[in-house]
Amino acid sequence: MKIVYKIDDVRAEVKAAKRQDKIIRFVPTMGFLHQGHISLVKIGRENSEYVVMSIFVNKLQFNDLNDFNGYPKNLERDMEMAEKGGVDLLFIPDDKEMYQNNLTTVDVGLLTDNLCGASRPGHFKGVFTVVSKLFNIVQPDVAAFGQKDIQQVVSIEKMVFDLNFPIKIIVAPIIRESDGLAMSSRNKHLNEKQRKDALALNRSLQACRKLIDSGERDVKIITDSIRSVIQEGSPDSIDYVSMVRYEDLSYIKKIEGKAVVAVAAFWGTTRLIDNMIIDKTDNGYVCIS
Amino acid sequence: MKIVYKIDDVRAEVKAAKRQDKIIRFVPTMGFLHQGHISLVKIGRENSEYVVMSIFVNKLQFNDLNDFNGYPKNLERDMEMAEKGGVDLLFIPDDKEMYQNNLTTVDVGLLTDNLCGASRPGHFKGVFTVVSKLFNIVQPDVAAFGQKDIQQVVSIEKMVFDLNFPIKIIVAPIIRESDGLAMSSRNKHLNEKQRKDALALNRSLQACRKLIDSGERDVKIITDSIRSVIQEGSPDSIDYVSMVRYEDLSYIKKIEGKAVVAVAAFWGTTRLIDNMIIDKTDNGYVCIS
Repeated sequence: MKIVYKIDDVRAEVKAAKRQDKIIRFVPTMGFLHQGHISLVKIGRENSEYVVMSIFVNKLQFNDLNDFNGYPKNLERDMEMAEKGGVDLLFIPDDKEMYQNNLTTVDVGLLTDNLCGASRPGHFKGVFTVVSKLFNIVQPDVAAFGQKDIQQVVSIEKMVFDLNFPIKIIVAPIIRESDGLAMSSRNKHLNEKQRKDALALNRSLQACRKLIDSGERDVKIITDSIRSVIQEGSPDSIDYVSMVRYEDLSYIKKIEGKAVVAVAAFWGTTRLIDNMIIDKTDNGYVCIS
Repeated sequence: MKIVYKIDDVRAEVKAAKRQDKIIRFVPTMGFLHQGHISLVKIGRENSEYVVMSIFVNKLQFNDLNDFNGYPKNLERDMEMAEKGGVDLLFIPDDKEMYQNNLTTVDVGLLTDNLCGASRPGHFKGVFTVVSKLFNIVQPDVAAFGQKDIQQVVSIEKMVFDLNFPIKIIVAPIIRESDGLAMSSRNKHLNEKQRKDALALNRSLQACRKLIDSGERDVKIITDSIRSVIQEGSPDSIDYVSMVRYEDLSYIKKIEGKAVVAVAAFWGTTRLIDNMIIDKTDNGYVCIS
């Protein structure tokens, strides 16, 4: 694995890999890697793929400076995990390499007004802007994102379509700890009790799955049930429990077609998210989380 | 010259040209071509260059539907001129090929609040969005824009820098009719008297050049003089007479460093623009228009 810090070096390495007819896969991260990130390197990987991973904590997408400053870091461990996970090129730019008096922003309308967008103003604009920059720097053929950040995934799929980026987006399933908690760099902020209580998030989705399997389609009934299960985990607050259409993340009242159930809650000052995709198939609805 | 209408066809042709080690030059236009456009195909062109021109009247950048509907068209003549001018690939998408329920926009802050941005709200966002799309479709090595739309040029240079598009921007000088009127697709809307009166725009810049050559640096004195020369051409209204810093188009009170003097005025309902770059060299200031 090669490690580079400069945009020009990324371009030179990617160019060389393309000359060898490699397919370029890109995995953008903010570091503090876990197996969820590594799954993005590995899922469906073909021999001819050259994998570029970036580690960049993007200030532009943090609306809370404390959250930015407190974002966990362990670069040495990240480098080990990335190498072991099969990354070919690790790109670790600093803030100055990425932003020099930046005035340009990319935004995807509508999609970002609800769910996480409501409580994190400006967050998604920051994500779209940095992802556009990274796409132009790496120029990958495919880019992999985790279902965990479902709103990010759907919005980036729309951005790629709207702006004609010549990139295929891979959506990888949520990777969970053995007890069911969705992996997240933020999990380390939880104390022992909070860590245990937070399992309510995943349990609430399992309750949702049961309801849907039993034929329930009414969103009010399903989200009320989800809320009551989350409450059992004594969160400090529930940010949202929402069901939206997959394609445009608009709120729905009844499940019809591909949908997403997404939850967010605070334990202490730590905000955790989880979700499940409800896909309509020929054999009825299937829940993917 | 090959003519294509579909994004996939552009990509296939460009890919084939790149395989032959061609450098891809891109010239985006809204059609109704004149020698200004053709100069963008030719300026500094090397033998190894493959030139893609697009013709697309981008609805998203028109804040006035009448202006959009009335935008002059002559596709047959455009095809002839493009072929004669040396274009290799002419891309003529329709609205449906370019926009399908588009939700994504690209914006360059600050730069677009003054000059043409003030009187054409939303215009530049539409320009940046379509140019980003076209960049991703064509994936050129260089792209050529005319100094005529100076605000567009400076903003796109900033956008390319900010979003790390791997594209070199060429800025080509303004091409003028033999009497000095800057070439524009809109000139055809002028009647004979307006056409003659509108020469005042270029004359006003020549007056500005004289003042600067004589050592004048005060923006108020220079713009007052420009206004009085434009008034001699009896415009229906003057939209703006502005001097701004080249780098960020911010208003200046005194000429210090690279600057732009830009003018816009209406004859009838036709809005004409013109400008001059004032560059600081070792031998003092040089005016380029």
